[in-house]
Amino acid sequence: MKNTFGNNISITLFGESHGEAVGAIIDGLPAGLNVNEAFISHQLNLRKSISKISTPRNESDNFKILSGVFNGKTTGTPVCITIPNENTNSKDYSKSYGKARPGHADFTAFSKYNGNEDYRGGGHFSGRVTAGIVAVGAVCIDALKKKDIFIGTHIKKCAGVEDVKFNNIEGNIKVLSTKAFAVIDDAKGVEMIKNIEKAKAEGDSVGGVLETIVTGLPVGVGEPWFDSVEGVLSHALFSIPAVKGVEFGAGFSCGDMLGSEMNDAFIYENGNVTTKTNNNGGINGGITNGMPVVFSCAIKPTPSISKEQETIDFINKGKKLLKITGRHDPCIVHRARVVVDSITAIVLCDLLSQKFGTDWLGA
Amino acid sequence: MKNTFGNNISITLFGESHGEAVGAIIDGLPAGLNVNEAFISHQLNLRKSISKISTPRNESDNFKILSGVFNGKTTGTPVCITIPNENTNSKDYSKSYGKARPGHADFTAFSKYNGNEDYRGGGHFSGRVTAGIVAVGAVCIDALKKKDIFIGTHIKKCAGVEDVKFNNIEGNIKVLSTKAFAVIDDAKGVEMIKNIEKAKAEGDSVGGVLETIVTGLPVGVGEPWFDSVEGVLSHALFSIPAVKGVEFGAGFSCGDMLGSEMNDAFIYENGNVTTKTNNNGGINGGITNGMPVVFSCAIKPTPSISKEQETIDFINKGKKLLKITGRHDPCIVHRARVVVDSITAIVLCDLLSQKFGTDWLGA
Amino acid sequence: MKNTFGNNISITLFGESHGEAVGAIIDGLPAGLNVNEAFISHQLNLRKSISKISTPRNESDNFKILSGVFNGKTTGTPVCITIPNENTNSKDYSKSYGKARPGHADFTAFSKYNGNEDYRGGGHFSGRVTAGIVAVGAVCIDALKKKDIFIGTHIKKCAGVEDVKFNNIEGNIKVLSTKAFAVIDDAKGVEMIKNIEKAKAEGDSVGGVLETIVTGLPVGVGEPWFDSVEGVLSHALFSIPAVKGVEFGAGFSCGDMLGSEMNDAFIYENGNVTTKTNNNGGINGGITNGMPVVFSCAIKPTPSISKEQETIDFINKGKKLLKITGRHDPCIVHRARVVVDSITAIVLCDLLSQKFGTDWLGA
Amino acid sequence: MKNTFGNNISITLFGESHGEAVGAIIDGLPAGLNVNEAFISHQLNLRKSISKISTPRNESDNFKILSGVFNGKTTGTPVCITIPNENTNSKDYSKSYGKARPGHADFTAFSKYNGNEDYRGGGHFSGRVTAGIVAVGAVCIDALKKKDIFIGTHIKKCAGVEDVKFNNIEGNIKVLSTKAFAVIDDAKGVEMIKNIEKAKAEGDSVGGVLETIVTGLPVGVGEPWFDSVEGVLSHALFSIPAVKGVEFGAGFSCGDMLGSEMNDAFIYENGNVTTKTNNNGGINGGITNGMPVVFSCAIKPTPSISKEQETIDFINKGKKLLKITGRHDPCIVHRARVVVDSITAIVLCDLLSQKFGTDWLGA
Repeated sequence: MKNTFGNNISITLFGESHGEAVGAIIDGLPAGLNVNEAFISHQLNLRKSISKISTPRNESDNFKILSGVFNGKTTGTPVCITIPNENTNSKDYSKSYGKARPGHADFTAFSKYNGNEDYRGGGHFSGRVTAGIVAVGAVCIDALKKKDIFIGTHIKKCAGVEDVKFNNIEGNIKVLSTKAFAVIDDAKGVEMIKNIEKAKAEGDSVGGVLETIVTGLPVGVGEPWFDSVEGVLSHALFSIPAVKGVEFGAGFSCGDMLGSEMNDAFIYENGNVTTKTNNNGGINGGITNGMPVVFSCAIKPTPSISKEQETIDFINKGKKLLKITGRHDPCIVHRARVVVDSITAIVLCDLLSQKFGTDWLGA
Repeated sequence: MKNTFGNNISITLFGESHGEAVGAIIDGLPAGLNVNEAFISHQLNLRKSISKISTPRNESDNFKILSGVFNGKTTGTPVCITIPNENTNSKDYSKSYGKARPGHADFTAFSKYNGNEDYRGGGHFSGRVTAGIVAVGAVCIDALKKKDIFIGTHIKKCAGVEDVKFNNIEGNIKVLSTKAFAVIDDAKGVEMIKNIEKAKAEGDSVGGVLETIVTGLPVGVGEPWFDSVEGVLSHALFSIPAVKGVEFGAGFSCGDMLGSEMNDAFIYENGNVTTKTNNNGGINGGITNGMPVVFSCAIKPTPSISKEQETIDFINKGKKLLKITGRHDPCIVHRARVVVDSITAIVLCDLLSQKFGTDWLGA
Repeated sequence: MKNTFGNNISITLFGESHGEAVGAIIDGLPAGLNVNEAFISHQLNLRKSISKISTPRNESDNFKILSGVFNGKTTGTPVCITIPNENTNSKDYSKSYGKARPGHADFTAFSKYNGNEDYRGGGHFSGRVTAGIVAVGAVCIDALKKKDIFIGTHIKKCAGVEDVKFNNIEGNIKVLSTKAFAVIDDAKGVEMIKNIEKAKAEGDSVGGVLETIVTGLPVGVGEPWFDSVEGVLSHALFSIPAVKGVEFGAGFSCGDMLGSEMNDAFIYENGNVTTKTNNNGGINGGITNGMPVVFSCAIKPTPSISKEQETIDFINKGKKLLKITGRHDPCIVHRARVVVDSITAIVLCDLLSQKFGTDWLGA
Repeated sequence: MKNTFGNNISITLFGESHGEAVGAIIDGLPAGLNVNEAFISHQLNLRKSISKISTPRNESDNFKILSGVFNGKTTGTPVCITIPNENTNSKDYSKSYGKARPGHADFTAFSKYNGNEDYRGGGHFSGRVTAGIVAVGAVCIDALKKKDIFIGTHIKKCAGVEDVKFNNIEGNIKVLSTKAFAVIDDAKGVEMIKNIEKAKAEGDSVGGVLETIVTGLPVGVGEPWFDSVEGVLSHALFSIPAVKGVEFGAGFSCGDMLGSEMNDAFIYENGNVTTKTNNNGGINGGITNGMPVVFSCAIKPTPSISKEQETIDFINKGKKLLKITGRHDPCIVHRARVVVDSITAIVLCDLLSQKFGTDWLGA
């Protein structure tokens, strides 16, 4: 299925950037989970622009819960949340139809949908659709917290600057969850933003890498083959526009390691099994081993840049020089962060429910 | 589902390293596809050991087609292929039960299955299960060739040595498909093997990176969100044991690029739309754009090493020093290659069938 | 998955009777299908009450298309249609919470959702949720017509009166599609309505049987085992509240037939293969054989009756005599008709897409 | 998916009547379930012919467990069981290729698979494929018994004779499970068999109805819409060849009932909620209400009859008079019984696991 993902707990996405609304349905959540509207707003705000380095489109993101919530709690039936589209300016986009923006889905959408696609603002391909993920993901993040499972993501690298490593996992996660520009070392964040602004000034954009850590997962979650934690998580993560790589634990650097360096030695610590290192990212054979699950996502530079670009006009069939005007972000790495957290929470709720049942999450 | 993957065309895996047989079912293939048994054998041989740098277990891999093939062609009903397990030596393994091999699934399997797992030779977690993928994947590779879709994978990096880049895509694919150690530049292969042998001599193992290219895919395959080409492929690729990272096009290096570097300029070439560069790996918005699809998989060093390792005994609850004896590969990168090709072919057949129907593949 | 059904083309339902809105998403439809809003309204009207024999709740059913439609055509991305809830009167229901209405889901919902269910007006179990099915089903019915596939359903039996059999299939379908009370012989309809009114006067309700015929399906649709036409259709049909039986062709009467009576003799008619009888309902081995697909659904009498009923109060744990007041239908057979047509259209679009691909439906 | 069914616990079927083997994989079962080979044999025997009224093909049904079982218990990984085909006599069938047997899938298979189908003995459409369902279903039946969930099916009607109703549910189930011809009242069975023999003597066959009862299911299993107990069970039941109707509780007779007759009054009995009648078959709103789940399946008369039948030759394109020689059953109702029990057990294990998790079943 195309816009639905998950087994016992599933998400369905819909909406276009300049249509009535974007939204998401989350189905399979147990009854009785708290639906904290303030936290949903908080999360949607994290997805929004921050001054200077993000698009000036001021999305109010006044979400509406259409179903599945009664007296502030989930009812056990599908939760549909919509985020109406406001402050859209479709004229910006209609004029440019046919000019394939490099790095965007304009040409593939046109080809796939035979010219019937809603091209305004990227339509269904717009990053705005991720607001639905964030809204319903907030409920999952909350539910996992009740089970002492915590998710934190920082900007590992952006605009050529690297953040420090996780140094106090619990504390880091707590602080990161409040930051609009989620770095562990704020000084590194300042450098990153400086470079982003520089790129913006040059009409260009930058990419980066997000690193996520999940603590508190019980041993034994995930399955040996196609429902491995890596497989299911990567499937969902690659659905986020701009993600071009996903790696777990040591990831691509394992290609340069010896087995004796890569292997994580098992030890007993206070009676619990743990490992000395975590190069496998908390996963052996597709299954959680009790260590934190760690993965990184490569985020490509925003394809919308104001620098002049060579391209084609697929309507009038010819060459074209393109300067993208209007609002666009010189960097979306920091905005993608909360989307990664949200989709991770949704996937983990589903994987946990396979083992423990959907009732467990609400118990 | 745990051991089944795919939508219209799906694969189901079963089997343990030291049970009766491993095998796979492929369901949804159209009727009338040629089932070339010699090619299946050829592919299974590529998955096998090569002298010196691979395990001496001499698997005859005499596969048996149990169903779905009649008069040398697919019947349109499920194709089940089993590969009986021979030449197994279970005594090697039973003695070591409880000693968690670092980097392996011994501990997670024990925890998940409460001590009921078939621990012999890694059981269901064994790389041997991939023989099923290779067997049924061979039918898909053949079917795609008929549609002028070709898949080629080389060892991009191994044991610290890098292969050259694809320089003649069509030619490279043709040659690679015949090589047991698939490099474009054989001199690089010699260096890699030398380093693998060195690691072996030290009781250690090495990892690497495989790079895959797919040519001939029509524009418009894949879906915007959860059935993006990246999402579905990565899901399947991460199911291959030892894969710890997957990236498309420029992948993780896009984190260091500017938008103006990353964006692939669209151009017309002989009337066809193409791009000047291919940093997006042939995919925009989750959908093929007509350029070759390019991706890489990080393969971790074989966790079985004969060097002494620190670990635990989870049965007798205590520390343990472990020296893994018996057969094991100092490198599986070259063997994983044909598994990557095979799972890629299966996934692509499924994605194509979503758009064109299952009949199309056989037409 | 609980509220999502379908493979390539899927429907997702959400909403509660007295929440913000009910709605449905249909995903996987090809781009370029006409979205005829007048026809959607027509279909939603068929689902509504008709004077005297239906509930006086006057639902305006002003549906809103939130996504997936642009310039009056499908874009190829998910179509979300909501029907806001208006004219609700929640006070009617809140007082009666805990008194399990016999034949309703009050008790099972309470048990399953631990008292968190939205109990107002049946909540997510309300027949009102079928409005979403009808709205998105209208698009599918239209798409099938373009492919010369037509669906017609009549009230085969209601309130003890039987309608005549299909006597002019094409003509019958055309006329039925316009009738609020869909019988082939209007005189029979008058009798049925008289009996319904009589039941209503006595504070009671009646059931019936709907019979559906589908013409124009190509040979070869459906699959041998779990995606048999019977299996997939019945799955969807039993999801309609009040359906307690589904049979194909001769159905349950085949239990009294001899093989020589039941078997449908194959003949050539104008060069086409057809059968002399159609006891198998157009399906052999799960696959369409070119004859019309014929099936019936048993619809139970509306459980809401004003007659006094014995029941329990599951909140206060005790016996209770219950007289259901407020609006309710003495019969829903005629209203269920358009829901059956709609879900049938959705399922057939999906089954066809498996064989021919999703592009085919829009071509 | 075509030959795979289920969510957390799924079954995959493969095989042809005259190929190497038929078989099934069950995936998702928890580790540690007993695999009682004697019980599997017992169940496979129930599926076999009994003297006089069944086909003389003497299938030894020496099943082989290829995977997923270790030391007599499930390992938690896929259980693959094959039943090799022996005593096949393909010459019987090859001569008749092209002559479409009425009521069989010969013509639809030919059309769907373009003449590539394995036509020998019905190929993949053969009832023999149900042996796989029975083999893996035996493990599920055993697992449910441990949870005090019992399934019993009797021949409600066959060859014009009706069995008595369930009169002592627990006792009935126990006795039925041992009978090759499963009736509650043996005298009725004798009458049925007499009529079957009469039909056989006339070269004809008979149909019937099977009624199933399931006790011990907890309240709250199943989902409101597409995963309703009725929807999921009917989907699986209609996959059994020859099933042409499925009804729950009062089923089609509800079309003639008043609401006041159909509604099941809730009462407290020893502190537990129960209902006075069970016209809803233990299901309200798609969800179990604690009463026994009751349903019936209509089984059509075996289409293979030796009486002369009118048909076509789709290879030579012409009329044909057909007398089917060789072995065939005058009745399969009694043989279908154990298939209904088995598929019911598989579906219930899956539905239970959605709520409670897969671990629960093994706990």
